[in-house]
Amino acid sequence: MSNNEQENRISQAIVSRLPRYLRYLTELETDGVERISSRELSSIMRVTASQLRQDLNNFGGFGQQGYGYNVSYLRDEIAKLLGMNDEHFLVIIGGGRFGKILAKNMNFNNSGFVLKGIFDNDEAVIGTDIDGHIVMSMDKLSDFVRENRIEIAVLTIPKESAKAVANGLCRTGISGIWNFSHTDLDMPDNIQVENVHLSDSLMRLSYRINEYRKNHAG
Amino acid sequence: MSNNEQENRISQAIVSRLPRYLRYLTELETDGVERISSRELSSIMRVTASQLRQDLNNFGGFGQQGYGYNVSYLRDEIAKLLGMNDEHFLVIIGGGRFGKILAKNMNFNNSGFVLKGIFDNDEAVIGTDIDGHIVMSMDKLSDFVRENRIEIAVLTIPKESAKAVANGLCRTGISGIWNFSHTDLDMPDNIQVENVHLSDSLMRLSYRINEYRKNHAG
Repeated sequence: MSNNEQENRISQAIVSRLPRYLRYLTELETDGVERISSRELSSIMRVTASQLRQDLNNFGGFGQQGYGYNVSYLRDEIAKLLGMNDEHFLVIIGGGRFGKILAKNMNFNNSGFVLKGIFDNDEAVIGTDIDGHIVMSMDKLSDFVRENRIEIAVLTIPKESAKAVANGLCRTGISGIWNFSHTDLDMPDNIQVENVHLSDSLMRLSYRINEYRKNHAG
Repeated sequence: MSNNEQENRISQAIVSRLPRYLRYLTELETDGVERISSRELSSIMRVTASQLRQDLNNFGGFGQQGYGYNVSYLRDEIAKLLGMNDEHFLVIIGGGRFGKILAKNMNFNNSGFVLKGIFDNDEAVIGTDIDGHIVMSMDKLSDFVRENRIEIAVLTIPKESAKAVANGLCRTGISGIWNFSHTDLDMPDNIQVENVHLSDSLMRLSYRINEYRKNHAG
């Protein structure tokens, strides 16, 4: 179990870097760059060349010894790994301020994420129009997810109701939860959870500021 | 250099878990739990007991063999590590939709982050009131940061202007940047950067959904 966790962590770290590789490669492609060496690419991305090669070797390499990487090819392969070549249908649960922002910005760079519906349990919010979506009542959620092949539920509701809503989603065939609620969710293996805890991120920043001060005091 | 990167990555992984430890310990404290074994705490947190002990040993341990952890003491020590016992003054740069949301929710659980000002370069936004803060013009930013001992700048501006604004902040004595702009920033060592790329997070989720399907197909 400890070994499995170790392996799992390593692959998570690599996966964490893939979206960043994709971002840089998309910019290079847009700039008309056709071919790039691992040295150049790693320098732009501020990782070591060996780190870059090691990361990409996990997925079969993609490079030709001495010829570097074909930018468009590498970009497409990473996009495929990240599932960016398929459409992904989403619902947002929680039509509050944050849900609204996500609704308006969901299709990041046309990356294939398609918002299909927004749900809320507040009578004052149900029926209102958010960016072309009429907010639906929570009691319609399960049927909607089943009938519209929804893959991902985006949770932007308070933590008090997040666990109950997530549990209700277990039986709908949903594949993933993008969780902005300030609590960890306990889901079965067939439902992937990605947590976004903004306050955790701010605390990591504060920690690193503290550390820098300690190491450079006096 | 490769070794340094390795060490740095390991410690980043531990740091990443600290805010989560803090969240769980705060809940336990609120629930009146005074003492907890590493086995119980690790089970609640879904890490192995050895992982938990290993993580905490990096900071001196905090536990007594056979007695487990004193919840309040451990919570306070982790809060101290994360710099939560001090006040941190922030400014938000970018008074758009996302800046507004952050402004209203900045003081997560009274964790010591204090918003001191909001800046924008849009004449239509400057002078408006966001949650009690009158939005100031960008040309006042540098003086304001210096005079008000601002530690952290929160960037919620488009990526086109993010790099220039970040570079301008280098000479103001700022300690950290919480970066919501969709670009990586290249800052000197004395300025810590924490990036929040929401689309990267959504892509990681999409990757894990894909992987699960591949491994459980047919």
